[in-house]
Amino acid sequence: MEAVSAIGTAVRAQRGPVEALFAELARCGRTDPGFTRASYSPEESAAHAVVARCADALGLSVRRDAAANTAMTWPGRDRSLPPILIGSHLDTVAHGGNFDGAAGVVAGLAAVAALRALGLTPARDITVMGIRAEESVWFQVSYIGSRAALGTLPDGALDAVRIDDGQTLAAHIARAGGDPDALRLSPPALDAAAIHAFLEVHIEQAPSLVEAGIPVGLCTGIPGNVRYPDVRIRGRYDHVGTPRRFRRDAAMAGAEIALALDRVWAEREAAGCPMAVTFGRFHTDAAAHGLTTVPGEFRFSLDMRAYAAGVLAEMEAAFLDAVAAAAERRGVTVVLGPRAEAGVGAVSPRIRDGLAAAAGALGIATRPLGSPASHDAAAFAKAGVPMAMLFVRNANGSHNPDEAMAIDDLLDATAILAAWLAAEACHG
Amino acid sequence: MEAVSAIGTAVRAQRGPVEALFAELARCGRTDPGFTRASYSPEESAAHAVVARCADALGLSVRRDAAANTAMTWPGRDRSLPPILIGSHLDTVAHGGNFDGAAGVVAGLAAVAALRALGLTPARDITVMGIRAEESVWFQVSYIGSRAALGTLPDGALDAVRIDDGQTLAAHIARAGGDPDALRLSPPALDAAAIHAFLEVHIEQAPSLVEAGIPVGLCTGIPGNVRYPDVRIRGRYDHVGTPRRFRRDAAMAGAEIALALDRVWAEREAAGCPMAVTFGRFHTDAAAHGLTTVPGEFRFSLDMRAYAAGVLAEMEAAFLDAVAAAAERRGVTVVLGPRAEAGVGAVSPRIRDGLAAAAGALGIATRPLGSPASHDAAAFAKAGVPMAMLFVRNANGSHNPDEAMAIDDLLDATAILAAWLAAEACHG
Repeated sequence: MEAVSAIGTAVRAQRGPVEALFAELARCGRTDPGFTRASYSPEESAAHAVVARCADALGLSVRRDAAANTAMTWPGRDRSLPPILIGSHLDTVAHGGNFDGAAGVVAGLAAVAALRALGLTPARDITVMGIRAEESVWFQVSYIGSRAALGTLPDGALDAVRIDDGQTLAAHIARAGGDPDALRLSPPALDAAAIHAFLEVHIEQAPSLVEAGIPVGLCTGIPGNVRYPDVRIRGRYDHVGTPRRFRRDAAMAGAEIALALDRVWAEREAAGCPMAVTFGRFHTDAAAHGLTTVPGEFRFSLDMRAYAAGVLAEMEAAFLDAVAAAAERRGVTVVLGPRAEAGVGAVSPRIRDGLAAAAGALGIATRPLGSPASHDAAAFAKAGVPMAMLFVRNANGSHNPDEAMAIDDLLDATAILAAWLAAEACHG
Repeated sequence: MEAVSAIGTAVRAQRGPVEALFAELARCGRTDPGFTRASYSPEESAAHAVVARCADALGLSVRRDAAANTAMTWPGRDRSLPPILIGSHLDTVAHGGNFDGAAGVVAGLAAVAALRALGLTPARDITVMGIRAEESVWFQVSYIGSRAALGTLPDGALDAVRIDDGQTLAAHIARAGGDPDALRLSPPALDAAAIHAFLEVHIEQAPSLVEAGIPVGLCTGIPGNVRYPDVRIRGRYDHVGTPRRFRRDAAMAGAEIALALDRVWAEREAAGCPMAVTFGRFHTDAAAHGLTTVPGEFRFSLDMRAYAAGVLAEMEAAFLDAVAAAAERRGVTVVLGPRAEAGVGAVSPRIRDGLAAAAGALGIATRPLGSPASHDAAAFAKAGVPMAMLFVRNANGSHNPDEAMAIDDLLDATAILAAWLAAEACHG
C-alpha cells in the first residue's frame, strides 16, 4: 500500500482540477440566485456531460445506463470481482447550490485521479457514479436514479409527474437519453449482491461540523422518512367576524397539527432521540383567502425523518393523533392524500472503521455525524450493499444558494476516501 | 300613525318585488360559485343601476355622489329637516353571496314602497343609500363609500390600490362615474351633523339567530378592529433534514403566533368578553416552498375585533408579545407592515328602543345581538350620526356562496324598519 502521506499529497494536487470542475458545473442551470438542475432536465444532463468529459480525460470508461445515470469506471485487475461504487447526484432543488450532490461526484473523480497519478491499479473496478434525480421535490419519489439502477423503483414511479411541468418520469428519462422501456422490462444495470461497497461524499446539510470546528464527518446512519406530500384540510369560509363557536377554521387546524408535532419533536430531541419534522408547504388557498375571511381550506406537506423505524412509527402515530384532535376541535375534515416512506439506511461498521483509520493516518480530524438528510447511499444500503458516507463541513445548510464549503475541506474528505480505496482495493 | 298591522301587511305585499329585485341583482357578478362584485367594479356598478331603476320606478329621486354612491330619496314634507338614511353596500367579497350588503338596500326600498303604498308622506326626507366599497378586502380600507360621503376617508386612501388589479381607488372611482377630485377638494356629500339617523339592515354573519330560533336581531354594537393586513416573517430556507437547533422556520413561527393569540381569544371568550381573531391569509411562499425545504418565509393577515377599545388594545399587546416571543424562539424576524384600525360603533339606545317597540307591536320576535362584523353603520356612528342596525337570520354565515336568508325573515326586519319609520317620521 502506498504511504498515506503520498496519497494526501496527491489529493492536494487535485485542487486545480477540482476547482475547474466546479466552475464548469456552475454553468449548468445557473438561476440567480443559485442553481436549478431539475431531475432529468437539460441542466442536469449538462452536468452529467461535464463529469463524463472529465472522466474521459482521466482515461476512465464512461457508460450511461437505462436511467441515464453516468458510470465512470477505473478498471481493476480482476474485472470479475464486485466493484466499489462511489457516487452522488447532479440534480438540485430549485435555487439550490452547486455543491449539494455534485461535490460527491467531484470527490470520487479526484480520488481516482490522485490514485492513478500515483501509478496504482485497483484490484477490482472502481466506478464513480453521477446519479440522476435524487431530489425528491421534483417527482415526489425518492432516489430515482439509484433505485432505477438497482431495479428497486416502486411500482408506478415511472408514471409520476414532475411538479413543474406535469410530464411523466418515463417521458423525462427518454428525453434525457435513457430507456424507460428497458427499466420496465430488462434486468437492472446493477446487481446489488455483486457490489463490494457504495461510498458517498456529501456536504453536510446543517452546520454541525462548523459548530464542532471539524472538517469531515463520518456518517453514522441515514434517516428513514414518512411523508405526506399533500394534506388538505377542509373547513368553511366564513365572515371575519364569525364567533368562535361557529368557526371551522382550516388554517388554525393546520397550525394546531404542526405545533402538536413540533412539541413531540422537541420532547424526543430533548430525550436524546434525533429526528426532524418539516411542514415545507403550509398555506391557505391564494385563490380564496383574504383579510376578512376565515380560511375554509388549508394545505400542507409533511416530512418526518428519524434513524429508527420504531421512532418513525411513533411519529406517524403522533401525527395521526394530532390530525384527529384538530379535526374534532376545529370541526374540519382532513384528507391525508398520498403517503410515501423510505427505510432507514444503515452504515457498514467495517467501512466506517476503515474510513476512521484512514483519517487518523492522514491526521484529519473527523467526528461521527448522523445524516440529517436522505441520500442515494440509503437506496444502496436498503438493497443490501455495504455503505458508508463522508460529510464535508458547510456553513449555510443546503437546498439554498448560500452553501459554503471550503475546497480544502472537500480535499480532506477526498483524501480519506482515496486512502481507504488504496487500502481496500489497491493493495497487493 | 298608521296601524302597525297595516304596515305589516303592506310590507308582506312587497314579497314579489323583493324577490324580483334579488333576481336582478343575481345577474350582477355571478362567478360560480357565488357572486363577485369587487368594489368599484363594473359588476358593483351594475348592482347600483339595478337599485336605481327600482327607486326610479317607485318615484324616488335618484342621485349619485362624488364617490358614486346611489342616494334614493323619498322627499319629506319639510325638506330642510335632517333626513333619515337607510343603507347598506352592494359590493361583495370574491365568491360571496347575493345578500351580504344588498339585502339592506332591498329592505330600505321595500320599507319605503310599503309606506308609500299606504299613502303616507314622511315629515322629513327618507333616503335609501346604495353604498360603494364596504368590503375592505379589495382596497384594504374600511367603509370607503360611507366615509367618502361623510368626508372622513383617511389620508392617502384614494391612492390605495385594489388587490386584484393594482389600480388606485381614485382611478376606480373615476371609472365608475365618480369624481375623485371632488372628494379631495369639495365639501362632502353628507353633513353628519344634519343627519337624523342612519339605519342598516344586514344578514347575520354567523348563525346566532338560527341557533336561537329568532328571525331578527337588534344590534347592540359594531366591533372596532385592529388590522395587520400583511405581516411577513423572514427565517431561512434550509434542507428538510436540518436539525432543530439550526432551524429558523418561518412557518412554525407563524403557527406559534396564531395559536398564542387563539389561546388568548379562547380565554377571554370563556370569561364573557366577545371578540374575534382571524388569520385570513396564512401561507408559505408558493414560489419557494416545497416538501423538502424548511420554510424561510411566511406571510399572514390579521384582523382582531372587539366591542371595547380597551379590549382591542389588550389584544394588540398580546399579538405584539406573541410576535416577539416567536421571533426570539424561532430565530426569525417579523416585519409587521401596515396597520389599520376602525373604532367601535355605538348603537343609539333611543332608536334601538324604538325598533324593539315596533317589533313588539308587530309580534315579531327579536333578540339583542352584537354585530360580529364591521358595517357602514359604524362609519356613521363614528361621525356622530345616531345609528342602529337590524340583523336577519341567516344559516350559513356570509362571505361565502352559501348564505341562506329566508325572504320571510327579511320581510320581518323590513316590517320593523317600516313601523319605526312610520312612528319616527310619518306621524302628524
